[in-house]
Amino acid sequence: MKPEEVWDTRGLRLRQVLDRLHESRLDALLVSHLPNVRWLTGFTGSSAFLLVEPGSATLITDFRYRTQASEEVGDEISVSITDSDLFAEVARCLEEGDSGPRVGFEDHSLAVRDRRALGESCGAVMWEPAGPLVGELRSTKDSGEIESISSAVRVAESALGDLLGTVREGVSERDLAVELEYRLRLAGSESMPFDPIVASGPRSALPHAHPGERTLHEGDLLLIDFGARVEGYCSDMTRTFVLGAPAAWQVEIHGVVSRAVEKAIAATEAGVPARNVDRAARDVIAEAGFGDRFGHGTGHGVGLEVHEQPSVNARSRDTLESGNVVTIEPAVYLPGRGGVRLEEVVVAGEGGRRVLTGFPLDLGEL
Amino acid sequence: MKPEEVWDTRGLRLRQVLDRLHESRLDALLVSHLPNVRWLTGFTGSSAFLLVEPGSATLITDFRYRTQASEEVGDEISVSITDSDLFAEVARCLEEGDSGPRVGFEDHSLAVRDRRALGESCGAVMWEPAGPLVGELRSTKDSGEIESISSAVRVAESALGDLLGTVREGVSERDLAVELEYRLRLAGSESMPFDPIVASGPRSALPHAHPGERTLHEGDLLLIDFGARVEGYCSDMTRTFVLGAPAAWQVEIHGVVSRAVEKAIAATEAGVPARNVDRAARDVIAEAGFGDRFGHGTGHGVGLEVHEQPSVNARSRDTLESGNVVTIEPAVYLPGRGGVRLEEVVVAGEGGRRVLTGFPLDLGEL
Repeated sequence: MKPEEVWDTRGLRLRQVLDRLHESRLDALLVSHLPNVRWLTGFTGSSAFLLVEPGSATLITDFRYRTQASEEVGDEISVSITDSDLFAEVARCLEEGDSGPRVGFEDHSLAVRDRRALGESCGAVMWEPAGPLVGELRSTKDSGEIESISSAVRVAESALGDLLGTVREGVSERDLAVELEYRLRLAGSESMPFDPIVASGPRSALPHAHPGERTLHEGDLLLIDFGARVEGYCSDMTRTFVLGAPAAWQVEIHGVVSRAVEKAIAATEAGVPARNVDRAARDVIAEAGFGDRFGHGTGHGVGLEVHEQPSVNARSRDTLESGNVVTIEPAVYLPGRGGVRLEEVVVAGEGGRRVLTGFPLDLGEL
Repeated sequence: MKPEEVWDTRGLRLRQVLDRLHESRLDALLVSHLPNVRWLTGFTGSSAFLLVEPGSATLITDFRYRTQASEEVGDEISVSITDSDLFAEVARCLEEGDSGPRVGFEDHSLAVRDRRALGESCGAVMWEPAGPLVGELRSTKDSGEIESISSAVRVAESALGDLLGTVREGVSERDLAVELEYRLRLAGSESMPFDPIVASGPRSALPHAHPGERTLHEGDLLLIDFGARVEGYCSDMTRTFVLGAPAAWQVEIHGVVSRAVEKAIAATEAGVPARNVDRAARDVIAEAGFGDRFGHGTGHGVGLEVHEQPSVNARSRDTLESGNVVTIEPAVYLPGRGGVRLEEVVVAGEGGRRVLTGFPLDLGEL
């Protein structure tokens, strides 16, 4: 994007926040969750508050980020640098500003101790929990964001393709994870959005296995769940392979999970309750007799964070909106034997959807 | 360690927590900060509470970690798995237990929203902020922990040694960061405790530079700040090199920072206020005329987290104790020209200290 488009985007986002504040009868918002700060300002440092007031937006950070902050946020947003206490600096900025006393804070991420420090520093402010206001706005992605996520998907798929050539009997899960991370970085991933899961044989039945010293054997399932990060945006995908010729039970559960993916993707579109997408996957698995072998939700939003709104599970109250980017990741885990999980990244649209992942879903024989 | 030693260690830590609860007149503690959960139980998952009561300790986690939790925590600690709401499960465990109503929570990390959910789920409980009680206990390391940190230092030093052979004109900061991460993983690092900083030329004057596309040129300073993780424990070290023959100003600021490191290390021992260690470094830099070119603290504790207690800065109220493991990382940053930071890892002891890092501090010419 050209610089002026970046400012337009940030200006639009700040106006959306102000609209929400108005609806909530809040005079201002103190943004503390760093992915939200980044989304609204472009700032990528590890310590900051953003104060959004009707007439201004002020990034409050410390000495270490003096140069970086002014480079990243541009002219529309003020930068306030402090050598000591961020809370005192928030108080000073609020006093200088002309907003009213009702200031929202991000109660889903601000720690109780920090909330108390704000109360002590800013005597005249009535702090109000604002809920996941910015997170809700972030959940509908614009075309630039979808392009970034799509780039992160392509980086991940390129790295996976490179990795598969190195899979053979005797290599360990850990070796594969190290080689995958290296290929992700070489392909352009800015960092690891999460530590890749590489789980083989019976360990593929553990939904969150750490890659271990177990080495691959003929007939093993090999489950790989990983992502890349491009321009801050994450991808998240899972494929399950088999070393050599698959056994009948492996083909069976892979087929069930594939159909669950297909049905859940077909259910993904704007206006649909997210729990219906979960149910579409869950029904396929239950009908095949594996209902008690799929214990987690079907998916989650993905963006600047690898887990964000909306939730795609049985308890979700979210309704999909156009521009939501979600994972679809049903699974069947057979304890002691192995599991299959397949994960796609899908953009919800009006009357349809776009699948960003393109790597084959087959039970690839390695 | 043999299994029985692991249980002894965990039992000792749980007893330390109970002693602190007794001093604070608390009947129980709900541990929510995951590094604290890991320290007390061995559990490495990403979602859990630990409830410590006088007669029992219960790890509360979700379905995904059923197998992992029971494998990691062993027999001394109960595991409670829930398919739905962790807060409701906390309430159930508290009702079943026989502790009194005053339950501490970790206000430095628990979000305001989660505190509210606890209040709603556990009607009869008087929740009390417990402060960084477990973090204080964690700050004094036992010999096993120091051994793990020392291993993480050795892994980092081995990777850095390998990396230096690849440094030459024309390679980018990003290329070097990717190769460093790969070598860290090959050498045994479990993950990256933080994204390495590789900053060259004028960018070495930015304390928290992201590795970028800038390529190395003759005469550049090259600052590398990175760590490894072994058995969950982090190392954190920084070295600054020069490409080719150093200029006089580079030799000068490197000499100043080296002397600051030396003085700060000499000041590090049990019983000393941590701010005195900071002052020892700062005085050297100020006397050399660079007092306004070193804006951050001198160091921080390192352990299961890369930044933990105690703080080593001018405002620290911590007094060093035997077994504290801290970084010493003074710097001089000359905006637009470049900076030198050197970082060591040091264990405070009675009447002395042990430096865990061994890689030469010289302004190595590459």
